[in-house]
Amino acid sequence: MPNNHHTPAPPLDGIFQALADPTRRAVIQRLTEGPATVSELAAPFEMALPSFLQHLKVLEDSGMMSSTKKGRVRTCEIDIQNLSAAGGWIDHQRAIWEGRLGRLDNYLNEFQSTEKD
Amino acid sequence: MPNNHHTPAPPLDGIFQALADPTRRAVIQRLTEGPATVSELAAPFEMALPSFLQHLKVLEDSGMMSSTKKGRVRTCEIDIQNLSAAGGWIDHQRAIWEGRLGRLDNYLNEFQSTEKD
Repeated sequence: MPNNHHTPAPPLDGIFQALADPTRRAVIQRLTEGPATVSELAAPFEMALPSFLQHLKVLEDSGMMSSTKKGRVRTCEIDIQNLSAAGGWIDHQRAIWEGRLGRLDNYLNEFQSTEKD
Repeated sequence: MPNNHHTPAPPLDGIFQALADPTRRAVIQRLTEGPATVSELAAPFEMALPSFLQHLKVLEDSGMMSSTKKGRVRTCEIDIQNLSAAGGWIDHQRAIWEGRLGRLDNYLNEFQSTEKD
């Protein structure tokens, strides 16, 4: 098991930036199914290795992925806490928006029942 | 009411890119509470107006915000469907990850009950 010392969630800027690319999203999607080596991750992409490694670096810098090297093999795994931080921010906005809709609804209902009186 | 003709959700690249900036996230956060004019949105920021308008343009291009102009006043409102598309992508990844954890858990439980027999 890698030594996962939990640092505070990195800024959302880096997390959202990392998610703004289809290759990086595909890597995250693959890692949700379990850890994978760099070769396994790179296999589906027709991309020069240095470019692919640059994508992995962005993911690692964002805190959404960590990697450990054993001999010549580097294995990557997802850090779900940091992906969840981004999801949590979006969920929070949706909750506020839905709360406002709910209040508008209540207002309309009250208005209609007053009309009936 | 603005004419909200629902186009298909724009690519996630643009949505996540738009969310990768604290000013743009603050604007989205403000708009979840209801529509606002450009002046109202700009007020909390110490930023030259052209720079601020550039942020609004990124948000509008991403599909997360729409705006209507009446006379000299432009009013912005959130398009929650597009913010939800980004949230949905993240939720899906978390669900796969949690599913895998659940299967690991079941395996461990079965393994332990076999040990007891």
